[in-house]
Amino acid sequence: MPAPHATSHACPIRDVLDRVGDAWSVLVITELNKGPCRFNALRRVVDGISQRMLAVTLRQLERDGLVSRRVTDGRPPQVTYGLTARGVSLHAALAPLADWAARHQQAIRDSRAAFEATQALAA
Amino acid sequence: MPAPHATSHACPIRDVLDRVGDAWSVLVITELNKGPCRFNALRRVVDGISQRMLAVTLRQLERDGLVSRRVTDGRPPQVTYGLTARGVSLHAALAPLADWAARHQQAIRDSRAAFEATQALAA
Repeated sequence: MPAPHATSHACPIRDVLDRVGDAWSVLVITELNKGPCRFNALRRVVDGISQRMLAVTLRQLERDGLVSRRVTDGRPPQVTYGLTARGVSLHAALAPLADWAARHQQAIRDSRAAFEATQALAA
Repeated sequence: MPAPHATSHACPIRDVLDRVGDAWSVLVITELNKGPCRFNALRRVVDGISQRMLAVTLRQLERDGLVSRRVTDGRPPQVTYGLTARGVSLHAALAPLADWAARHQQAIRDSRAAFEATQALAA
């Protein structure tokens, strides 16, 4: 799907949707908002994510300054991921949308089913 | 990018991100929140959207019960698009995220540039 032409200056939400529009990022941010977490523990709680996809997601979140990566000594060294202050603020900004999603989920599904039924009749 | 495995029952935000994660949808919802609009007028204000992409986006929004389509008599008949009550409530739920995006846009860009620079040094 082509990205909107509008530069991000004109449309700051574009940059954020690059991240937020990716459900994996939202799920990882939601988990990390509960507290810092190691890679494998994160993989267990984010249902269905692959090792590679989790690595890619964490890297993108780190690149955006939303997640920080802390390496502690040990054999092997331990890597812990956590939300930065910016990540925490994004989680807070997402809350109304998550609430909305939970409240309207069933109605959206019903609309989709009704729409498909109409299209099937028209075809 | 594969969709999270978690069923939408477990994770209602998935359904919504299908729509909201698409920046075109967000831009169209933002425009329609200002008032009902005809197709060509909408196309002019949503910078860079193609005729086909606008048609697809409106159809998906209509399918989700977020946008309604009103046909009025005339030659040719006129089609006007507007937000439903559900669409208006989604727009409201998106507002904190849009504010967050505007406030953090520059910081995210700076983080990305800094991250790329670090990676380049490490390579």
